Formats: sequence, C-alpha cells, structure tokens
Amino acid sequence: MTEPDLTFQFGGRYPIADVLPGQVLRTSTEDCFGGAVRTVEDLPSQVCRRFNPVTGPFRVPGAEPGDTLALHFIDITPSRPWGMSALFPHFGALTGTHATAMLHEPLPELVWRYDIDVAAGTVRFQARRGEQSRVLPLDPMLGTVGVAPADEEVRSSIVPDAWGGNLDTPRLRPGATLYLGVNVPGAMFSFGDGHARQGQGEVCGVAVECAMDVAVAVDVIKGVATPWPRLETDDELASVGAARPLEDAFRISQLDLVTWTAELTGLDVLDAYQLVSQAGQAAPGNVCDPNYTMTAAIRTEYLAAAGGDRVSGYHGVHQRLRELGRRMAWPSR
Amino acid sequence: MTEPDLTFQFGGRYPIADVLPGQVLRTSTEDCFGGAVRTVEDLPSQVCRRFNPVTGPFRVPGAEPGDTLALHFIDITPSRPWGMSALFPHFGALTGTHATAMLHEPLPELVWRYDIDVAAGTVRFQARRGEQSRVLPLDPMLGTVGVAPADEEVRSSIVPDAWGGNLDTPRLRPGATLYLGVNVPGAMFSFGDGHARQGQGEVCGVAVECAMDVAVAVDVIKGVATPWPRLETDDELASVGAARPLEDAFRISQLDLVTWTAELTGLDVLDAYQLVSQAGQAAPGNVCDPNYTMTAAIRTEYLAAAGGDRVSGYHGVHQRLRELGRRMAWPSR
Amino acid sequence: MTEPDLTFQFGGRYPIADVLPGQVLRTSTEDCFGGAVRTVEDLPSQVCRRFNPVTGPFRVPGAEPGDTLALHFIDITPSRPWGMSALFPHFGALTGTHATAMLHEPLPELVWRYDIDVAAGTVRFQARRGEQSRVLPLDPMLGTVGVAPADEEVRSSIVPDAWGGNLDTPRLRPGATLYLGVNVPGAMFSFGDGHARQGQGEVCGVAVECAMDVAVAVDVIKGVATPWPRLETDDELASVGAARPLEDAFRISQLDLVTWTAELTGLDVLDAYQLVSQAGQAAPGNVCDPNYTMTAAIRTEYLAAAGGDRVSGYHGVHQRLRELGRRMAWPSR
Amino acid sequence: MTEPDLTFQFGGRYPIADVLPGQVLRTSTEDCFGGAVRTVEDLPSQVCRRFNPVTGPFRVPGAEPGDTLALHFIDITPSRPWGMSALFPHFGALTGTHATAMLHEPLPELVWRYDIDVAAGTVRFQARRGEQSRVLPLDPMLGTVGVAPADEEVRSSIVPDAWGGNLDTPRLRPGATLYLGVNVPGAMFSFGDGHARQGQGEVCGVAVECAMDVAVAVDVIKGVATPWPRLETDDELASVGAARPLEDAFRISQLDLVTWTAELTGLDVLDAYQLVSQAGQAAPGNVCDPNYTMTAAIRTEYLAAAGGDRVSGYHGVHQRLRELGRRMAWPSR
Repeated sequence: MTEPDLTFQFGGRYPIADVLPGQVLRTSTEDCFGGAVRTVEDLPSQVCRRFNPVTGPFRVPGAEPGDTLALHFIDITPSRPWGMSALFPHFGALTGTHATAMLHEPLPELVWRYDIDVAAGTVRFQARRGEQSRVLPLDPMLGTVGVAPADEEVRSSIVPDAWGGNLDTPRLRPGATLYLGVNVPGAMFSFGDGHARQGQGEVCGVAVECAMDVAVAVDVIKGVATPWPRLETDDELASVGAARPLEDAFRISQLDLVTWTAELTGLDVLDAYQLVSQAGQAAPGNVCDPNYTMTAAIRTEYLAAAGGDRVSGYHGVHQRLRELGRRMAWPSR
Repeated sequence: MTEPDLTFQFGGRYPIADVLPGQVLRTSTEDCFGGAVRTVEDLPSQVCRRFNPVTGPFRVPGAEPGDTLALHFIDITPSRPWGMSALFPHFGALTGTHATAMLHEPLPELVWRYDIDVAAGTVRFQARRGEQSRVLPLDPMLGTVGVAPADEEVRSSIVPDAWGGNLDTPRLRPGATLYLGVNVPGAMFSFGDGHARQGQGEVCGVAVECAMDVAVAVDVIKGVATPWPRLETDDELASVGAARPLEDAFRISQLDLVTWTAELTGLDVLDAYQLVSQAGQAAPGNVCDPNYTMTAAIRTEYLAAAGGDRVSGYHGVHQRLRELGRRMAWPSR
Repeated sequence: MTEPDLTFQFGGRYPIADVLPGQVLRTSTEDCFGGAVRTVEDLPSQVCRRFNPVTGPFRVPGAEPGDTLALHFIDITPSRPWGMSALFPHFGALTGTHATAMLHEPLPELVWRYDIDVAAGTVRFQARRGEQSRVLPLDPMLGTVGVAPADEEVRSSIVPDAWGGNLDTPRLRPGATLYLGVNVPGAMFSFGDGHARQGQGEVCGVAVECAMDVAVAVDVIKGVATPWPRLETDDELASVGAARPLEDAFRISQLDLVTWTAELTGLDVLDAYQLVSQAGQAAPGNVCDPNYTMTAAIRTEYLAAAGGDRVSGYHGVHQRLRELGRRMAWPSR
Repeated sequence: MTEPDLTFQFGGRYPIADVLPGQVLRTSTEDCFGGAVRTVEDLPSQVCRRFNPVTGPFRVPGAEPGDTLALHFIDITPSRPWGMSALFPHFGALTGTHATAMLHEPLPELVWRYDIDVAAGTVRFQARRGEQSRVLPLDPMLGTVGVAPADEEVRSSIVPDAWGGNLDTPRLRPGATLYLGVNVPGAMFSFGDGHARQGQGEVCGVAVECAMDVAVAVDVIKGVATPWPRLETDDELASVGAARPLEDAFRISQLDLVTWTAELTGLDVLDAYQLVSQAGQAAPGNVCDPNYTMTAAIRTEYLAAAGGDRVSGYHGVHQRLRELGRRMAWPSR
C-alpha cells in the first residue's frame, strides 16, 4: 500500500484526520487484498505483499482512556461491481496453519470472483472447477474495525481482540452501532476489510472481499468503559469475544452479555445468566484468524420488562446516531 | 429411574420395542431431572441420583451397520405446563468444571421454574433474586437423540458424539429430520431431554427442561453411511460436530457439510468449501457437555442450481416422512 | 483377536480371573496391533481389524466403588526382540484427524521395525527412507492400564479418562505404583499396549509397540477414593489428567496434585498451589488419543518437612508392594 | 518504571545500547514486579502499575531480517538474596481469567517471599497459612527474552510468540544458547523476568521472581532464518512453540523440532517425525500467559549417527559462544 491513509496496524500511527463526536465520516475502504486481486489468475501469495489494509486512524478529540467510542454504520456499500475470495496456503479452519502446525502440504491456492449487483442485492458465486454458479443475497459488512490497543501495543490488522480489529462478524452491517473501549487519547479508530457477504465462521478464511463506501456516525460516551466490543441494532444487543480456543471466545462474549444484561435490567447476575442461557444467541465470526471470535446476542424485546421501555445499550446513543444518519440524507443508490 | 423404558446410556441395552421403517412412534419422554425437580426448592444435587434419562432403546428391524437411520420429528409438545432450569455445581460454561478444573468453590446451586403456555406459545422466566419476569417464545426441541455407538461402546446420555446423544441443538425441533449412522443391528435409538426452549450454546448448562410428548416417523436408508449427525428441514441442511475444543466441533460440522454439499451438487469439494464459506451458518449447540457441539447449516435454496430442483439431503426421505406425519392426522393442540 | 483373555474395552466384560489383594499377577500382553504387524510391509490399516487389545479384565475380590486399586508394576519386559511403530492415516498430532477435521489427504502410511536388545538395554531405529539408524535406550512401559468406568459406561481401550485407560505416559514403567479409583465391584482392571520406549507426547501417535511380560502386585485401599489416576515411585508422586484441549488435561493433573499435596503435608491448599507451582513437573503423555493426557509430578523430597519422614502417597502402600515384588524373586534376565 | 533502560514491550523502542556480534553483554535485570514487591504485605495489584519490565532493547549492528540472533547465557545469578511469588487475581491456570472468562470471584491475592542462598544453591519456601517451610534447589533462569516482532507489531512483554518474549521455560538457564529469528534491522533484543526457579507449566502464573545479574554472549547467523525460538545446550536441542490451545503450542514445537532434525541429520522428514516420536521430550513452559508455551527437545546423542560427530544446531555457534564465555573469566560466586 502506498496510499497514505491506509495502515496495516492498530496503534502506533499518527491520525490521518479528526472526527468530532456527533459527526458523520464518509470515506471508502480497500479490500483485504489492497485491490491487487482482480481476476482468478491473481494469486494473493504472488500479487500481495501485505494483507488487510484499514483506513485510518481517525482521532476523536475528547475521547480518553476509560471512555467508550460509538461507531454507527449508516452505510456500507460495495465500491466495485465485483468481490474476490480465495483459498490461501495454510489459512482457514480446515487446513493446517501457522499455529495448528502440521506436516501436510498446503491445499491448492485458488481465487474466486463474484459479480456484485447492488441494485438487485445479489452476489454471484462462480465455481472454478466446473461451470456451476449460485446466486446469494448481498449482505455488506466490515470485517475489521478497531481502536488503538491498550498497553502501548501495536497489533496487526489481521488480529481481533479487546480493542476490536478483525472481528469478522456479519452483524457489523449497516444499521449497527459498534462500541469500543478507548485506550489512548483520541481513540484512533480505523476500519476496512469489507465483505459483500460472509458465512458464519468464515470457514475457508476469506469472505467475498470487497472495497466499500462507508458512512459512519461517531460519538463518545464519557466515563463509561467497555471491556470487549459490543454491538447494538434496533433489535438486539451483542457482545464479541476474541480468543483461542473457541470456547474462550464464547465464554468472553457470554460473560460480557450476562453482566451487561444484569446492569441494564437490574437483574441479579445469576438471574441474568439464566435469562441469557435460554434467550441468547451465539455465533462464530471467524474461526481462522489469530484469535477466533464469537458473538453473544439477545433481542432487546427479551430484556424489556412487561410494559416497560425498550432497553438501550448505552442510554440511547444508538438511537440518536441512527437518527443522525437518517438526517444526513445519504443519497440512495 | 425405575421406569423400565428409561435408560441413561446409549448402547448396551435390550430394546424396549420395535419400530418398523415407515412407522410413526408416539411416546412421551421425561425431563433431564427424571421429573424430580418440580419447585425451586428441589435442588438437583439432592433430589436426583442420575441425570438425563432417555426413552428407549427402540430397535428398527432391518437397520444394519453402514445404513442411515432417519428420524423425522412430527411433534414435540410439553407434557406439563411448567419447565425447570438450574445452576448446577461445577457445570456450565462460565464456571470451573470437572475438566476445566479450578480452585474455585462452585457457584450457588439455584433452580428456576418456568410457566409454559402451549396455547399462547410462551414460557415465562421468573427471577429468583427479585420480582422480575420475562416472557419468551415457546420453541420445543429434544436435547438428546442417539443410536448405539460403534466399537461396542456404552456411553452416558450426557455425552454427544458421532452416534448423536446429547446434541442440544435447537434445530432438533418439530419438522426436522435427524439422520444418524447405524452402528449395530437394529440401530437401537433412544431420545429425551426435552427443552421448552434453549439459548444457543446453553451457557449455564441447563435449558428449560421439560417432559415432552413426541411423535417421530422412522425410516432406514439402506447402504448409505452417515459419519456425523445430520439434520434436514424444508429449508436447510445441517451437520453436527461434537468434540473439544469447540473449534474441532466446528471443523467436524463444516467439513461434513462441505463434503455433503459437494456430493449433492456435483461441485468440486474446494468449490463446495468456498460456497459454504460464504453461504453457511454456524452455531453452538452446547458448550457445557463432555463434548461441545457445533452445527453447520446451509439453506437448500443456495444449493439448488438456477432453475434446478430443490436439493434433498437423502433423495427425498425428509419430504416423504414429513408427508407421512401430516397424514397421521395428529390432533391439534 | 480371538484370544479369550483379550478385550478392546474397559467395562462391560466378565472377568477372566480373580486376583486377590496382596497377590502378584504374572501374565503377558499383546502389542497394540495384536501382533499382526511384524514387518515394515504389514500396513496396520490392512492387517488389523481392531487396535489396542488389553489383557483382562481381572476381578479383585473385595474392591468396591469408593475404594482405590493399587497396581505396582514389578516387571515389564519385552516378549519379543522387536517392536513396531507406524504412521497411521489421520492419526497423530501433526495431521488432520477424525476430530481436528481437515481437507488434507492423509500422510503416507509407513511402518518402522525396531530391534530390541533387552540385555543391552537398547532399541534400534532404522530409517525407512535411507540407510540411517540410531540406537536409543530401552525404557519399557505399559501404555494402557485401567478399570471399568463409572456410570455403567463401556469405553474403547483407545481412550484415557478418569478410570485410566490409554494414559500413554512413560512414567508407567517398572517400579511405579498406579492408583485408580474403583467404580464397580471387583474393580475389573485390564492392561496392555506395551511400549519399548516412547517420546513425551507420542507425537506421531504410535510408540515402539511391543508385547510384554508383566508382573504386577495388586492391593486395595478401602474407603479411600481416587478421582484421577495417580502414580507413585520411590522418588515422586504424580497425577494424570485426561481431556481436550490439552490445557484441561494440565489443569486436572495439577489440581489433583495440589489437593493431594495439601492433604499429605497439611499445607493449606493455596500454599500447596504455590509449592507445586515452583517445584512441580509437567509432561504430556499422549497428544493424539481421544483424550490427551498430562502428568503433574513432584519429588517426594520436596514434600517432606526438614527432618521429617518421606511422604507416602497412600500410607506406605507403594513401599509394601515394592517389597512384595522383591520377595517374589522374579528371575533376572 | 522510570529507569530509562527498562521497557514493557518488544518492538517500537529505540535501542539503549549496541552489542556487536562476538561481544559479551553484562547487565542486570529487574524482577517482574519492577522490584516493588519486597514483603508479603506488598500486594502486586496495589504496588505495581505495570508488570514484567525487560532490559533493552539492544541493537546488534549487522543483524538483518532473515538472519538469526544467537544469545548464549553465560551467567544468570540472583541480584538479591530473596525472590517473590504471588497469587494474582484472575491469573494462573487454576482460576478463571480474562480469556477463560467465568463468573467466579478471584482467588485471594497472596504473596510469598523466598530466601535465596546462592552459595548453598537453595531457595526456601515459607508457607503463608501455617509455619511450614521447604527447601528447593536454586535453578536460575530468565522468563522473558525476545526481539522486535515482525509486521511492525509492538507486543507486551507478557506475551510469548514467534519472536520470543515471555517463554517461561526453565531450559533458558545458564549454559543455554537461544536462537531467535531477526525481524527488524539490529534485531533489538531485550530480556528480564528472572526466576530463581520455576515449576514446569508455572501453574499459579508466577515463579520465584528475582532480579538477576546476567552475562550473555551475542552472535548473528547471517542468511539463516529461524521460525520459532530454539535452544541449544551441550546435551540437547529444543524448539519452543507459543499458542493457544496448548496442543497448538505442542504442535508448533514438535513440527519445528522434526523439520530441524531432518535438516541436521539428512533424515527424510517422516523418518525424523518417527525418531522424535520415540526419542523426544516435551514440557510446558507456561500455561498462564496470553499464549501458552511448550518445548520439544531431543538429546544430541540421539541425533548423531553411530561413530559420527556431535550434531550442532547452527554449525558450532553454541560451542563457540560457550568457549567465549569461558574465556571471559567471569568471577566465580
């Protein structure tokens, strides 16, 4: 990457711009190949030197360690009418890898090209070995959104962890608000790794990778810490855990959702544990990155007492940012 | 348990009855407490000697090792207007356990009682520490369905593995057909552990446990082996993996779904890997039992070629059993 | 196997003989291939129908659930002047397996034959691809020793768990006393799977497999339960954990050693945790079987207070059985 | 920490000094508490702001990415006659942690003080709850040695990974040569975290922490890459893997030792896999840090062909550095 607004790390970089709380940022992001993979002949191991550039970091004046950054994604739309996927050597869940080290030769390196039709809302899978194709729903999302890590660490954008990063959850789609704990003054957030769509778990390690036009509304919640990434939509609250083995990612996400539920509802934490046990959802984001991710979610309707108000994750921040997005009159496509 | 038709194992038992292929079996099942936990004062560690009785085994004449047993669940309806859940000492995902051995004292043992309203389709959570309650949708399922294991093993009904068992996936609800590889003559299937509903991952280790009235249509697919439990509904195909750590349960389920997809569609296995990576769903069943379970699923509409027929998991067995169930004129409730 | 004294399971079998507490049992055991692999041309996948026969079960009159069985291994000597090892398809730590399911083809199936010289105390590795050889010390052990499991389970002899089984630790060599909790009347112990030697972790999945002549002194410790397999030698105490992932096997073994240390020394459990943290040893047995095993050990000299007596694991049982073995005048070889 | 020569990261720092290849560096290191814990009343959570300072980084002129840095530890001697250990909240293998997230309250925070007698070669454990004490052998080592990571990452000194870091293996004692792949010009190595002794696996998470006087001989092996940390002594070669779950750390270390063995001996890689399977050792370093570590080792005598020369890990570098250390006439203590 030579573009000055791209980076391959979270932390350790000067901001490329400031975004004030209450502002909407419109920008575009490259795909995880930096745009270098355009045909099925472009093998990532040959045409890419680095992977997963993110746009940023953006500084949010006023954000301090101990605060929470809120990023509401108003729009995530493919910038190009195609997306790329690949089988990359020793990467993915069904192959030996750097960490799950084995004596096997890598699986073949293969590239797939998907046609994207934003108007029709579809992506088209075309087999590489044979003539078959399938049409799948377009469901754009960002794979990677994060802030600068704690403890002065600088981390590769391939990694998900408590600061966000390569979360790879389809829940990070337009309409969602992502909450991240702030570790350094200005928060220093970056994002990228757009996916036209992605299966849960991202089993081969690569989604339908796609450059994206993004509009994001930004806010800061002062004096409220957030231990792990959280998501809010109109319908649900979700916590994201990142760890190995996968059960630890599950544990992190569920414990965070349980304690968050207790805090929001006034339920005792063991009652919240029980409620989440019966009403909660759980899904893997990725099972291929240096940390795996799991999301724990609960519908807000199950949190509200009978006749009570909708339960809001952070006192209405999601609703206000959603309204802000609507007022921006983002042009329809 | 003194009832002669209940067992706590898969394998090693004489059949309690025969069920012919093409027949519908109507019976009832006890809850995982054997019905001994009826109020919040009934602590499972005190009132239960054993856990998770299953009804069976049933012998299916003609089923031989190498065949596949198909069990289509026509009906799973709560037998009683209440269900029980509990926090059991050193059991669940957010506590030290027998295997994840720690120096912590157990969390408090607590019991919850849920009111079940079949007509309204609801279960009602009532907090133990405080007065709050919540209403959740009724979504009945069976936690435990399996056949006799291979290699002459006899396994506790708490365990899920390749022969089925304690799968604890909400996908095992009415309308689903479960496919299990047959390991011994007669298959010797059993089932139980009804849940009025369950969150994904069953994080505290116990669902809304409930005795169930069950109607199941049975068939045998001769000469076709099934390596891991599979599910088919009108809308999707799913594979279940059972293992620790959780990523291995994920790997098993995804690999089985990938190879099954290749077989059903004629796609090359690496093309199937790619398609499942973008179109697949993944969810934990339990993250608390001796093996954890993960389900990999894909919608049948994504498997069908443009203009092609619906893809059936086993050449129409699910559809035929579903029709059989409809013709049985099961009385509405 | 057609020999009536061999079995492939723990549990669910009639005893082949009784052994009274205080008696010494002399017998021989087959190797894990049942003796069918004798040259490097004998591929296990072709010449073996089942794996890991064990000799037994032996009933110990008077042993009851809640007691502890003590097995002191007086002698474990190769029955034949050769041992066999192999690379078996989809088995071992550096290959995709049944549970760590992957898309790779299996590694090549290969067999190695080792010359064993009991008098010289050596085993000789001979490369298959080239002419090189190496001489290693003979260090005979039994891979598999166990009793009937709890909960009426019947388990394959490939599996290690709380009842013992396929522990695969080199510490199970002559001079060691193995303690196993009794789950059924008579304990019903079996053993086999001799290894002329084995690396820690048994990384390829197969040791230098060897039929063995075995002499074992038996005792029962009434009214004392043992939760996981324990070992005692003249120099150390050890606890074995069996689970996946490997850290859970570590946790089980360390927690058992910590609580055992506290019990034997009178140290508070947190002081024992601290002492084991600084003085303890830890080693993998196998990282290839259905459960992995880890051993936690501490030298008895670190347990004794200054000027105090040697700390004995079970009030001198090991020492008495060792003396019993010496008095048996086992002929030297 | 205010001392300018201490850091809490690997990577991202200016060097504090240059050390030329062939030079011996003599310096001292602080303990993991930065010296702030001196009595059993000093609770780390109260008196420490950060943990695990390391001395450095040192730049090695001429070291370039793709080279290997060799660090031969001539001397590691306690700087003070005492060492400290602790039970730290939510840290260690037998407690819920940040990643193995649970609902348990933390175990009590407790501190232990050990008397160190360098002349006698002992450390003395003193129980906190009761009057008991035990005397253990002094066995000094460095817990943390590493270089700047690849991919421009900056990592906390708590973490072990491919660049070294918090390896926590007792094999890193005087007489050992550590080999680390170089990722940035000058390698930029740092070290610290002395342990007067440590059990394998460091089960409570904290060793007998101790400031150390260190003498280390430095060399660079040009044009030879090293993928994971490796160790050489007069008697053995060892590879260190760092990952979660623990079996992945095992896999990494074993695969590296297998391929290194093949390279050094000329054995085919599958023959080397077989030889390591029977002759190899395996031990956990830590089972508590953000990545767990496992070491795979083999005695050099098992690598040498009959009548052949001793096999050297890097063409005699270890032997030359050892001789260099001897010639330095380090004063005896």
